[in-house]
Amino acid sequence: MIITMKKNTSAQDIAKVMDQLKAQGLQIHESIGENYNVFGVVGDTSRIDPKRIEANPHVDSVVRVSSPYKKASRLFHPDDTIVEVNGIRIGDKEKLVVIGGPCSVEGEDMVVQLAKDVKAAGAVMLRGGAYKPRTSPYAFQGMGSAGIQAMVAARKQTGLPIVSELMSIDKLDEFVDNVDIIQIGARNMQNFDLLKAVGRTDKPILLKRGLANTIEEWIMSAEYIMSEGNEKVILCERGIRTFEPATRNTLDLSVIPIIKKKTHLPIIIDPSHATGDWELVEAASLAAIAAGADGLMIEVHNQPECAWSDGAQSLRPDRFAEVIRKGRAIAKVIGRDL
Amino acid sequence: MIITMKKNTSAQDIAKVMDQLKAQGLQIHESIGENYNVFGVVGDTSRIDPKRIEANPHVDSVVRVSSPYKKASRLFHPDDTIVEVNGIRIGDKEKLVVIGGPCSVEGEDMVVQLAKDVKAAGAVMLRGGAYKPRTSPYAFQGMGSAGIQAMVAARKQTGLPIVSELMSIDKLDEFVDNVDIIQIGARNMQNFDLLKAVGRTDKPILLKRGLANTIEEWIMSAEYIMSEGNEKVILCERGIRTFEPATRNTLDLSVIPIIKKKTHLPIIIDPSHATGDWELVEAASLAAIAAGADGLMIEVHNQPECAWSDGAQSLRPDRFAEVIRKGRAIAKVIGRDL
Amino acid sequence: MIITMKKNTSAQDIAKVMDQLKAQGLQIHESIGENYNVFGVVGDTSRIDPKRIEANPHVDSVVRVSSPYKKASRLFHPDDTIVEVNGIRIGDKEKLVVIGGPCSVEGEDMVVQLAKDVKAAGAVMLRGGAYKPRTSPYAFQGMGSAGIQAMVAARKQTGLPIVSELMSIDKLDEFVDNVDIIQIGARNMQNFDLLKAVGRTDKPILLKRGLANTIEEWIMSAEYIMSEGNEKVILCERGIRTFEPATRNTLDLSVIPIIKKKTHLPIIIDPSHATGDWELVEAASLAAIAAGADGLMIEVHNQPECAWSDGAQSLRPDRFAEVIRKGRAIAKVIGRDL
Amino acid sequence: MIITMKKNTSAQDIAKVMDQLKAQGLQIHESIGENYNVFGVVGDTSRIDPKRIEANPHVDSVVRVSSPYKKASRLFHPDDTIVEVNGIRIGDKEKLVVIGGPCSVEGEDMVVQLAKDVKAAGAVMLRGGAYKPRTSPYAFQGMGSAGIQAMVAARKQTGLPIVSELMSIDKLDEFVDNVDIIQIGARNMQNFDLLKAVGRTDKPILLKRGLANTIEEWIMSAEYIMSEGNEKVILCERGIRTFEPATRNTLDLSVIPIIKKKTHLPIIIDPSHATGDWELVEAASLAAIAAGADGLMIEVHNQPECAWSDGAQSLRPDRFAEVIRKGRAIAKVIGRDL
Repeated sequence: MIITMKKNTSAQDIAKVMDQLKAQGLQIHESIGENYNVFGVVGDTSRIDPKRIEANPHVDSVVRVSSPYKKASRLFHPDDTIVEVNGIRIGDKEKLVVIGGPCSVEGEDMVVQLAKDVKAAGAVMLRGGAYKPRTSPYAFQGMGSAGIQAMVAARKQTGLPIVSELMSIDKLDEFVDNVDIIQIGARNMQNFDLLKAVGRTDKPILLKRGLANTIEEWIMSAEYIMSEGNEKVILCERGIRTFEPATRNTLDLSVIPIIKKKTHLPIIIDPSHATGDWELVEAASLAAIAAGADGLMIEVHNQPECAWSDGAQSLRPDRFAEVIRKGRAIAKVIGRDL
Repeated sequence: MIITMKKNTSAQDIAKVMDQLKAQGLQIHESIGENYNVFGVVGDTSRIDPKRIEANPHVDSVVRVSSPYKKASRLFHPDDTIVEVNGIRIGDKEKLVVIGGPCSVEGEDMVVQLAKDVKAAGAVMLRGGAYKPRTSPYAFQGMGSAGIQAMVAARKQTGLPIVSELMSIDKLDEFVDNVDIIQIGARNMQNFDLLKAVGRTDKPILLKRGLANTIEEWIMSAEYIMSEGNEKVILCERGIRTFEPATRNTLDLSVIPIIKKKTHLPIIIDPSHATGDWELVEAASLAAIAAGADGLMIEVHNQPECAWSDGAQSLRPDRFAEVIRKGRAIAKVIGRDL
Repeated sequence: MIITMKKNTSAQDIAKVMDQLKAQGLQIHESIGENYNVFGVVGDTSRIDPKRIEANPHVDSVVRVSSPYKKASRLFHPDDTIVEVNGIRIGDKEKLVVIGGPCSVEGEDMVVQLAKDVKAAGAVMLRGGAYKPRTSPYAFQGMGSAGIQAMVAARKQTGLPIVSELMSIDKLDEFVDNVDIIQIGARNMQNFDLLKAVGRTDKPILLKRGLANTIEEWIMSAEYIMSEGNEKVILCERGIRTFEPATRNTLDLSVIPIIKKKTHLPIIIDPSHATGDWELVEAASLAAIAAGADGLMIEVHNQPECAWSDGAQSLRPDRFAEVIRKGRAIAKVIGRDL
Repeated sequence: MIITMKKNTSAQDIAKVMDQLKAQGLQIHESIGENYNVFGVVGDTSRIDPKRIEANPHVDSVVRVSSPYKKASRLFHPDDTIVEVNGIRIGDKEKLVVIGGPCSVEGEDMVVQLAKDVKAAGAVMLRGGAYKPRTSPYAFQGMGSAGIQAMVAARKQTGLPIVSELMSIDKLDEFVDNVDIIQIGARNMQNFDLLKAVGRTDKPILLKRGLANTIEEWIMSAEYIMSEGNEKVILCERGIRTFEPATRNTLDLSVIPIIKKKTHLPIIIDPSHATGDWELVEAASLAAIAAGADGLMIEVHNQPECAWSDGAQSLRPDRFAEVIRKGRAIAKVIGRDL
């Protein structure tokens, strides 16, 4: 951590700041310039709050040089984490995973049929929303428990493990008992109580990036889960909010090599929410694989124009199969499979 | 709602879309151009999901012309809503409110002293965080229930109503029993279960704007609360996330006249989080009053450099009093008081 | 174009707006709802300024349904445009192009050597900046004419056509006489006088997207060049500015299928500026090819740590060759070559 | 400047970087931590390019602590700069300036009449565009020289100094000969050749902030002008581009105290472009004055619905007079006049 203090700060005012840090076991190295005084703080600074130091009127800036996360950091955990779900390995260098399914579960027959279709197309897991975060209180809010049970029925018929989004702590037991991967949605990426709660389970957690959260904040949310004891975290990029109106979000694929460098966690891409437009999903999917993603999560629907939510971004099963076919060929080029 | 369908769409494909809408009691008016087919959909379209229509491959775009909110809309409720809390009226054209207090409650003595200080300076309400949403799991997470009790003690000694942030439904009863206004923080603006839960109470709700949420999404979150029966919603702008690194967030003051035009709800400004820098708080506060805000919520601390959170953006009580003094003079210029 | 007028607008006030449009040869279709009056404007609206109509206090909103560009539009020009430069075809479905070279030309020997290196690696064109747009007036501003001449020498020795950035109209003749493709940089994407000037030449123009410009604005800048008679426009995405600090810009690969759908122009990707970090360039390059880009423009330097500008994002020739090798394999998967 | 090098970098690799800096007369202070090596670089680092150092694969990050600008910096020039134009002082603590006029000059009679109107309302300067930067090549591009002559005629009749936007170096003489303040528009904020050209004149320059430029980049553009010898720079904030669609741009008023702290230059606000909506201009104007702006530049038109550009954001003269009346009262509260 580097602290810059203003020119002409008295030795006494400098000492006040530095003594506090030394009392926490940190070492201070100083560099005095003509216009600034710079101090290097060496030691474990992850528990130091930079804003607290910045509150001192003599302090000009505080910059971290070491990352504020530990458990998620590649530095302290050089090997890749692989999250296993019923024998499927997410984060494996050899093989990518594809998760497919509807935005919302709309009934048991519908989701069972879709599960068969996505499995036939090459997906190894089924997604489906039972509790839906909708901007409008008047929009369809999901089937709730009946939706979870429909997913369970689809798993029984196809063997596909199931992923669904948990929105509230009071449904945690239902999810632990029934789903294979608990998804934390973009809007809840900084719902810290929810993060802590899932961190106390041993279920794999799919943590979506918030729509305007930095990569560092996202890793810190993974750290919340991991700091409670659950290290089975899968990161999922789903596009960020920018000024561009032509897409629902802007897919940020640079996160893949950055996440791989900074953390040891698997990362998958959701091209459906990232683009908001089924015509863009294939290009985004192939690009994600080429950039090194560990997997894809894609919305699939048999009648997108009748979907109860997000129809505009859903693929029909035949197009989904086509994406997997092309994606597999690209995976092979970079030494993986799918 | 305006639907544009692609050139050369067959009459049958057009009918498929329009018949669905007519079945929901809507009327269709058509305009056929050389390159496009445009359809005006007239009636109550608030329950129609534009994304569902866009999923049809023949549809080019769907644009709403009437707003998707009803209860929050100025159109259906022309008079200003005034939220009363122990005789203090938020949203009153005559008088603004100022809420002051620490970011985090750090102990009973501390918050009682600060309550006295902010009251002496002219504040009519006390803020203080007992449950804190922190980016890092290693940062101070708030005093919890002891913090709420410290706030209650401060209210007893000063008479100031208290505002505190609720992060999780399982603490709802504690908040209903103890605080006067329940704050929903920026990170929870789209935690829809939490919104519904507070919508079933009769407590005033202070709803902060999410850090990258549009004004329409923000009003829709207010609509969530109101649709459950609680119409005592106070909106609070606290800055949005942009590319500019010089401030913590970018304060968007245009929201004030926009919110006043589109809704009947009161709106206050939080200049502390918006700027992240106590040196900028005075300018932001005076600007907010000049732009027509119904109030301010400002972080105050007796020793900002020792604050357990957000010290860099907290004012000392004497500077806070100065902001109120200048703010009152500006309020008077535009025909209000403070 | 759809115009929504406020409820209770008098027939006379409506007529005032509509008569103006009818006088310009447009037809009006009306849809009167309970809360709004909606009018569809049919005909060539590309010369109508929506802002002028919005200035009318009775108008609520104006929405375009047809695009404001003509010459760049796929609608009026269904076939792909291929820009030929010395036999190299940019925009060809069969074969991608790779352009490599230094950010800044630093001397003739240096650029001749690099030209040989990038050619050996598989590049078919040479890039190199002679006039450099730098944020600081104290930073190296480019070698100017000597830099252009060094590029010419490199072309003579290798046969590679050369691309360089034109910053100012007064150097236009120098560029027309010496370079093969004139680059318009991101900061000049809306320097309309410069766009018109290059539009009056017959040189191919590489038009970079501005750092916070929408896709529509970008196409409109291409339209500026084309409307002056020069239809040899190549679009180049180089990342957009967002809130994320981990990369110099955020690479937006969804633009590739969007540009292909909306326009007939070729589009290439600059992964060097998009990421700002050589460690991310390979992932971004492969992703761009998988997403359907017509080519790549990559910064290459023999000693990145000694580069006079942008060293942090430059590849060494051996890494550049590796990117081309992998990129070729991915191109083949999607039925192209490189 | 602080350089962090990766753990395990050899002493030799460290020396390579540091020796280069020492050769430029800088001193190095080192702090070696468990996981990082940190070096403080002391001396005049304004000519050092951080990207060049970052290119070294052993370097983890480079952070500036002193600002990269000198002539614009408050540190080296503590007194406020006041730009005088025909006796009007911009940047004066005592008195704000208001500039009014049409977006585009539409004819001599029109602009003369408007000049009289804005003068009667209290404006002390006239704005008017003769060369217009328009997104579409098919939109009205301005009257050109005839527009400049119409502005000159308006000055003759009213005595108001005139401000107009220069888009291209080839018109520089016309502007130097005819206008009182040369405006550099947002789209040209980083047109560095244009900045250097106006820096070689002795005309006051009104430098608008680019639509997605940071405050630091904006000050660096001022530095470009000043480094050529012209220190008469007036900064003008006009809103930045964000994700929010409800306004044309997002007005960032925090820039006012930040610019005042970091530089000695005057800063004015353009509420018309910042909001894009005449209904929001009053609130934005009063807020800007309360926040400490040195002046306002507002678009005024006698018939906004007939304006040839930007009618939606133009005030009629009577509303403009009302804004000035209220603005004056607010200026007095903070010890200034208008």
